[in-house]
Amino acid sequence: MSSTPEFFNVQTVQVALALLAGHAVLQPRAVACRVYDALGRVLVTPPVSPTDLPTFVRSTVDGYAVRAEDTFGASQSLPAYLTCVGRVAMGAAAAVAVRPGQTVEIYTGAMLPAGANAVVMVERTQAVTDTEIEVLAPVAPGENLVQIGEDVRQGDAILPAGHRIRPQDIGGLLSVGILEVEVAAAPRVAIVGSGDELVLPEQNPAPGQIRDINSYTLAALLAQAGAEPVIMGIAADTPEALYQLASAGL
Amino acid sequence: MSSTPEFFNVQTVQVALALLAGHAVLQPRAVACRVYDALGRVLVTPPVSPTDLPTFVRSTVDGYAVRAEDTFGASQSLPAYLTCVGRVAMGAAAAVAVRPGQTVEIYTGAMLPAGANAVVMVERTQAVTDTEIEVLAPVAPGENLVQIGEDVRQGDAILPAGHRIRPQDIGGLLSVGILEVEVAAAPRVAIVGSGDELVLPEQNPAPGQIRDINSYTLAALLAQAGAEPVIMGIAADTPEALYQLASAGL
Repeated sequence: MSSTPEFFNVQTVQVALALLAGHAVLQPRAVACRVYDALGRVLVTPPVSPTDLPTFVRSTVDGYAVRAEDTFGASQSLPAYLTCVGRVAMGAAAAVAVRPGQTVEIYTGAMLPAGANAVVMVERTQAVTDTEIEVLAPVAPGENLVQIGEDVRQGDAILPAGHRIRPQDIGGLLSVGILEVEVAAAPRVAIVGSGDELVLPEQNPAPGQIRDINSYTLAALLAQAGAEPVIMGIAADTPEALYQLASAGL
Repeated sequence: MSSTPEFFNVQTVQVALALLAGHAVLQPRAVACRVYDALGRVLVTPPVSPTDLPTFVRSTVDGYAVRAEDTFGASQSLPAYLTCVGRVAMGAAAAVAVRPGQTVEIYTGAMLPAGANAVVMVERTQAVTDTEIEVLAPVAPGENLVQIGEDVRQGDAILPAGHRIRPQDIGGLLSVGILEVEVAAAPRVAIVGSGDELVLPEQNPAPGQIRDINSYTLAALLAQAGAEPVIMGIAADTPEALYQLASAGL
């Protein structure tokens, strides 16, 4: 087999990628992006929480806010009796304080009232009268609570640079009131089709011609990868035609 | 542990999904979509090719179109000599025919000229003069060719219903001149936030309040899955408020 060298003036994928990397701008340009629209975008600047989360001590269960010490030793056979002096409304500051021997009804996510330091699950209580309950098991101080800043601390960088934003990240950013982030501008990639045999997909190929499909397949792959494809059209098989479309792309 | 039944009026995920499926419209509505814009959409109607692909016999290599029988027995030590009578231009019908003892220069993807039934790779030839070549190895009839309709036959359903369109499918559809497909309309999903403790993400929560983040996380998950989320806002914890937003969503 005789080789004709002009047919082998090609590079390996590794060499081709290295050549490309030498010419590519690898430092992404930062653009502002509303968090609502940030799905799939890549963070340039790590967003920093302006607040603690939660901002108040919250209950993790439905039940009764108590002073833990009032429940020590309580059991099914020897319950602790507490007087219910109110209820914490959802979305409001807890208005009633809990004093020794007292309790306040509370729901999951609601704010712990002053004086209380734990919550008893409703499943471990029993109503005796309209204002009196039995507590059937003890709780430790801090039990069934989320403390201030337990999820996020004010000043924490909550996501790293280079992170691609997922649905749950949108929720996380909004939870601390971050409404805008700095993300990498999508890379714009110009696509030049080349070949005397190519016609546009909407044209009817004459004998010897085929439709240009690589431009559109590449455009879809780029869009899928988060880039912005720019289809430049088809260059004839001359250096001038290729140069013209490549220059226009740049 | 005493149980309070009203707290356990919940369903398993399986039961909840079955309940939902009983109310959901599972037959997707078909909408027309340009193939250029069809990435990620789901086909309702299998697209049928209006044409064979390729539409002409093409070479798969750079080399020389020949009558295979003229190369039988050729070898490095005893080459076959052929007279080159022309070249097939890319994107044009092959103008010159190949007669016994003749050959025509041809490139990958070009149309096989009349009279020829195979192509010899250029690597297996050697130029002797401007018009004469040596063929150093034989080819069988049909070698290094793609026949008419070998990729796709006219009338073939080229993708099944239910298929989610990938980048390469866009190329495949365009290759046979299909410019529009029938895809499932994206399901629209209304999202109702609920809870007296919720405020909008752009609001500053008062003590006991938190920002609604589930609406936006769910919206992003839906968008990622190809659905169209519609955020309805936040309903207070009353049946009337929930009913009103749910009705408005429907």
